Amino acid sequence: MRYRLDIEYKGTAYCGWQRQKNGVSVQELIENALEKVLSKKTVILGSGRTDAGVHALGQVAHFNAETHISPRGIMCGVNSLLPTDISIKKCTVVDNAFHAQSSAKSKVYAYKFYISDTICPLKEDFAVRVKPPLNIDLMREASAFLLGTHDFKAFSSTGMKPISTIREVLSLEINQNQEDIEIKIEGNGFLYNMVRIIAGTLIEIGKGFKPVSTVSEMLRTNNRRLGGKTSPPKGLVLIGVYY
Amino acid sequence: MRYRLDIEYKGTAYCGWQRQKNGVSVQELIENALEKVLSKKTVILGSGRTDAGVHALGQVAHFNAETHISPRGIMCGVNSLLPTDISIKKCTVVDNAFHAQSSAKSKVYAYKFYISDTICPLKEDFAVRVKPPLNIDLMREASAFLLGTHDFKAFSSTGMKPISTIREVLSLEINQNQEDIEIKIEGNGFLYNMVRIIAGTLIEIGKGFKPVSTVSEMLRTNNRRLGGKTSPPKGLVLIGVYY
Repeated sequence: MRYRLDIEYKGTAYCGWQRQKNGVSVQELIENALEKVLSKKTVILGSGRTDAGVHALGQVAHFNAETHISPRGIMCGVNSLLPTDISIKKCTVVDNAFHAQSSAKSKVYAYKFYISDTICPLKEDFAVRVKPPLNIDLMREASAFLLGTHDFKAFSSTGMKPISTIREVLSLEINQNQEDIEIKIEGNGFLYNMVRIIAGTLIEIGKGFKPVSTVSEMLRTNNRRLGGKTSPPKGLVLIGVYY
Repeated sequence: MRYRLDIEYKGTAYCGWQRQKNGVSVQELIENALEKVLSKKTVILGSGRTDAGVHALGQVAHFNAETHISPRGIMCGVNSLLPTDISIKKCTVVDNAFHAQSSAKSKVYAYKFYISDTICPLKEDFAVRVKPPLNIDLMREASAFLLGTHDFKAFSSTGMKPISTIREVLSLEINQNQEDIEIKIEGNGFLYNMVRIIAGTLIEIGKGFKPVSTVSEMLRTNNRRLGGKTSPPKGLVLIGVYY
């Protein structure tokens, strides 16, 4: 039987989603817990990686198992073995054709920051501070160029070599609630560091360090160097994966 | 000259506001930073203690100093020496009669919790999980008895012996935003653990473990044992102090 896990985690303490030799990953802790609950070594496959320090409200993974334990029993058992910064929110039986990564139609990420002259300790774990002034209208204007299907090569970190750098951004909104701002973006897939480079570039545009045309120039030239810094991981959260 | 500091901190890593022999306190770290900035040992006096693990959005403290450094210079200097979970939000020159503790007219605290079957890692640092079901209406009904001037002895932890256990609760509201709930309470002063005992008692009433009459019975009999558990510190935040 195939099972789907919906998972929430605070990424601060982890080397990321994916199991790695140097560092504790979210995947590793869930697999270790599953092995105890199912009495069998079990590999889970996530919808995609999240980097060290990146959070998830709705990461999705799947695994195969033959067990008499109910899905709720698996969830409760695994949760009882996990630290409080990782939590299985749902465990459901799915069709064998379901694949957390390749069945995914789109993903939604949010990048959060706050405008303040001084650090806000109550916000620091999940948002990046940006000093005022910041022109949100310029950010919105520039962000409109990202909508649709483009070669996002300039919005990816070198190192990874994906087969294609073409992706579709389905929606992008910049929501403001007083000093709290989030860039919410839905896409059919994301390149390595894509959301963090988009965030870093839009913030530098909002601060007036770069012109609004930066985004369209990056899309036209594929030149990563034209863009802003890759924003820190702590501001990023994987909101959900749609199938 | 007398200075007022407005301070925000995440209390998770600290033994509380007040300097203590065993453990790192918020007061100690600010005093150490002030000593470096002012080149003189400087004692700060807070509006009141917060316990280990309790947060503050608007703690207030004062200190005396003779310096040519501007208030903003003091703020920036101290902030540059503080960890990111403590931040001076304002530093202002005040009248010599201003006293962070005895000039305070009222304080506002919020106690935060969320209703969920499973742990929410993105909320865990600043809120306490309560399993459903929870009847908020019963909590609101019971909380009305707390308004006004009463002997709150039953809502305080033993150990501390205040001169008087009479306090005035100026307002109390229970705000709900989907699964997130906060008890926001303003009073002219609070006894030791008072807000956490109020929160713990109201939650047990909301869960149906105790009758609505519990609150009025506690006020009538001064019997702490009738109340609910003292809720964990991480749900509590000192919102502000009014002068």
